[in-house]
Amino acid sequence: MSPSTPNSVSLTPLVFLERAAAVFPHREAIRFGDQVYNYAQFAEEAQHLARAIRARVSPGDRVAILASNIPQMLIAHFAIPLARAVLVTINTRLSSNEIAHILEHSGAAMLLASGEFSRVAEDAASRVPHGPDVITVSGGNREAYDDLLQDGANRAAVPWSVDDENAVIALNYTSGTTGNPKAVMYSHRGAYLNSMGFLHHAGFDADTRYLWTLPMFHCNGWCAPWSITAAAALHLCLEAVREEAVWAAIDAWDVTHLCGAPTVLSIVADAPQAHPLDRPLRMITGGAPPSPAMVSKVERLGISLTHVYGLTEVYGPYTICEYQPQWNTLDERERAERMARQGVAMIQSGGLRIVNDDLVDVPADGMTLGEVVMRGNNVMLGYFRDEAATELAFAGGWFHSGDLAVMHPDGYIEVKDRSKDLIISGGENISSIEVENALLSHPDVLDAAVVAVPHVKWGERPKAFVVARTESTVDAAELSAHLRSRLAGFKIPDSVEFLVELPRTSTGKILKRELRDSAMSPPSVPG
Amino acid sequence: MSPSTPNSVSLTPLVFLERAAAVFPHREAIRFGDQVYNYAQFAEEAQHLARAIRARVSPGDRVAILASNIPQMLIAHFAIPLARAVLVTINTRLSSNEIAHILEHSGAAMLLASGEFSRVAEDAASRVPHGPDVITVSGGNREAYDDLLQDGANRAAVPWSVDDENAVIALNYTSGTTGNPKAVMYSHRGAYLNSMGFLHHAGFDADTRYLWTLPMFHCNGWCAPWSITAAAALHLCLEAVREEAVWAAIDAWDVTHLCGAPTVLSIVADAPQAHPLDRPLRMITGGAPPSPAMVSKVERLGISLTHVYGLTEVYGPYTICEYQPQWNTLDERERAERMARQGVAMIQSGGLRIVNDDLVDVPADGMTLGEVVMRGNNVMLGYFRDEAATELAFAGGWFHSGDLAVMHPDGYIEVKDRSKDLIISGGENISSIEVENALLSHPDVLDAAVVAVPHVKWGERPKAFVVARTESTVDAAELSAHLRSRLAGFKIPDSVEFLVELPRTSTGKILKRELRDSAMSPPSVPG
Repeated sequence: MSPSTPNSVSLTPLVFLERAAAVFPHREAIRFGDQVYNYAQFAEEAQHLARAIRARVSPGDRVAILASNIPQMLIAHFAIPLARAVLVTINTRLSSNEIAHILEHSGAAMLLASGEFSRVAEDAASRVPHGPDVITVSGGNREAYDDLLQDGANRAAVPWSVDDENAVIALNYTSGTTGNPKAVMYSHRGAYLNSMGFLHHAGFDADTRYLWTLPMFHCNGWCAPWSITAAAALHLCLEAVREEAVWAAIDAWDVTHLCGAPTVLSIVADAPQAHPLDRPLRMITGGAPPSPAMVSKVERLGISLTHVYGLTEVYGPYTICEYQPQWNTLDERERAERMARQGVAMIQSGGLRIVNDDLVDVPADGMTLGEVVMRGNNVMLGYFRDEAATELAFAGGWFHSGDLAVMHPDGYIEVKDRSKDLIISGGENISSIEVENALLSHPDVLDAAVVAVPHVKWGERPKAFVVARTESTVDAAELSAHLRSRLAGFKIPDSVEFLVELPRTSTGKILKRELRDSAMSPPSVPG
Repeated sequence: MSPSTPNSVSLTPLVFLERAAAVFPHREAIRFGDQVYNYAQFAEEAQHLARAIRARVSPGDRVAILASNIPQMLIAHFAIPLARAVLVTINTRLSSNEIAHILEHSGAAMLLASGEFSRVAEDAASRVPHGPDVITVSGGNREAYDDLLQDGANRAAVPWSVDDENAVIALNYTSGTTGNPKAVMYSHRGAYLNSMGFLHHAGFDADTRYLWTLPMFHCNGWCAPWSITAAAALHLCLEAVREEAVWAAIDAWDVTHLCGAPTVLSIVADAPQAHPLDRPLRMITGGAPPSPAMVSKVERLGISLTHVYGLTEVYGPYTICEYQPQWNTLDERERAERMARQGVAMIQSGGLRIVNDDLVDVPADGMTLGEVVMRGNNVMLGYFRDEAATELAFAGGWFHSGDLAVMHPDGYIEVKDRSKDLIISGGENISSIEVENALLSHPDVLDAAVVAVPHVKWGERPKAFVVARTESTVDAAELSAHLRSRLAGFKIPDSVEFLVELPRTSTGKILKRELRDSAMSPPSVPG
């Protein structure tokens, strides 16, 4: 289709904000404490910021942001792509070392940071040769940001449309399983289509009051910055997801929807403030399956729960555990078990299979393990500057999740084992290899293995098994201190156990299952 | 993106049925009288029919269907594109002569017809040299259809995916009040995206019980055969849209949504069976603006009403009159007038403008007339086998609707007239729709049309044709008095003629040309 035909419009989620501001300029768009933005103000700040960024970086340049779920984070989801730049959101829990790696790998031209994280941002940027300028976007020190906005206000408007729907809109860094973070590339087309599909499955409409408990730095908040805006609904922002703040918001702001890892379910259901609700609240949980006990607890509060499953590489949730009416006849535990399955592909997802090593479907018997593979417009473009990893992930024309699952006779998948080396703690992925490498960087550590152990609050926590030099006096406290300078706090193992040697297969692979079993059976050695 | 990458999946609405049947095989999909299809049966019949058609026609061939809203019509919306053929739906109100023209112009390779229309289908096909075979798909004489299904059952499955999302999925012939009917080409991509957008705006979900009052032969039922299926919701089919049948369905089937022209509103609201509802029912009306009187009538039944606007060339509705909360403070009449505006572009629509002849936006002053032009993936690919008409319609890179409208300061458009129905009197523009609405607000007026008649002094003057209630004694003087309280003096028709019914096209459009002709030839009845 030639550019002169009116039927070839590139897909991009940016148009959702353009439309919401045009149709509902005075409608409340964002609340954050006492701050309120209407849709006109939301779009205006996005425009002004975009114009200023555009004047400072080249098209396709990466612009990073380090912030929790504050309004500026939401605005950046529009402003940065609007500036023809690529949005790079950074996990606020990372150490400045890890952040520096992301800045260097992405080649970020600018780094926006909330006041809370401006110091770590400065520190990280200083570790990178020709590191990016840091702009503080919130708190008491945001003059540079205000200057940017003022500068943008004096520049010409940038169009809300894009030329190429397959252009990169965002990079999302994943800890993955290999230890080396990889930068997942999302396209405008994929983000648009995933937003449209999630809009349907989540049931967002103009009356939606969405509480931001899911970090926007995870898979761009499952595309919800865009889909909530498509519905011209209300974004309710929280700086920190804590029991008191969440329940205050639920009660005072009449929240209708929230998303998050099972940890968020726990924050809601186990809070002292928890009480049954007399109006609909829908929670969508992913990252790990909700436990049957948690399903019951949440539902007893009158909250409706939906379980979704995906990965960073597929724009967040890819499957949904669609509720089947016949489950109502099951007993509570069986019903909860069904709801904990990962389910079926969403309407915008292109294909979901469980396959063996030859890419042949395993029988749908609920027993035979295979790998979860996926296709669709909500599969990443690839890993930024990592063709080898991309090729490996896309072997045979399907995206390989690395997760092991069974296919039930009803077509629902159930993940049995996240790829072996991934620990999911409070919705955050921890690469055991990354932690092992950090342990091995201590001069007295000869060998190390990190496994997941179950945890009531966080779902899983890492535990380390270490073989130290014979003559060494290193202990758990020293190792923790060593790791703390290298890794985000949530990645530090809760306990370290010293062994004479690690159990290995004949081919030299560490027998992690054995370590997991041993970690659970005896009283574990305190770290 | 190469075909070996898993992120380049062609958009097509066919996958919605594949998914619904896989996830909800036993869920009710279609009801028609006592007939019930579940989603597995729906998908199976579509597959079998598709395989049989595929064995008989070449990819890209046109396969036509002449049927009202029976299950086979719905099934054909999947089966024919699934067979890699192009779906051609034919208006059942056309004469066999007009149908023959469509068969010839489209070069249809097959013609499916319901039992009700098999005779006219045979007749039409016989008028075309090498006319298509007619297959009767319903009623007592459907052996050939059953044979096709049986044949398809023995053939290999056809994939639900397509290679090229820009391939033609359907031809929709526009009703020709002006000249020759034109065949509007829809693409798989456009149909998918329009389905996704309508899914959101209509609020279809798994609990939706959709009554088919809108003919599927109009713009493929506004893409709802696809979007209702995306939601895995329930299609409620009616052979004929009559007061008794519609109300029986609303009451017995717990209908949640229905769509249609204002005529359908009248069938619902003016029926003797009409009664207030105590559960939500949403009506979406398009094709012509609802009169303020009708808005009030429908709402008094507890029905929520949404007004949409579009054309065949834009897959049905393109704009929606989004409701603004501040309208609640308006008086009933002002509020109804706002709701009768055509509104704003839907989320899937690419661009909406009101422009002058130089394609420059008219001021958003609610007064300056211009032409409605549109862009988006929900704009047709073009007119089949009519490059000249396509080029004309796409002049300047926008689709030209031919409709004249104003842009209000709030960004809502209001269509004042089809270009040809504008009355220009003494340099003042008179919208015939505005005068018609004013006439319809009189309690004794059932139907009204206003046309221009030549006038020595003013150039043109409006003349009204009115259908009054049988028992009414209303006369021209009373109507003039009624209008005078509502309209500027120059807009009051110089004469009013009472008719038993208005001449209409098969699609329900008033034949204004006929009225103009009749107004000029005989001495007009004094008003």
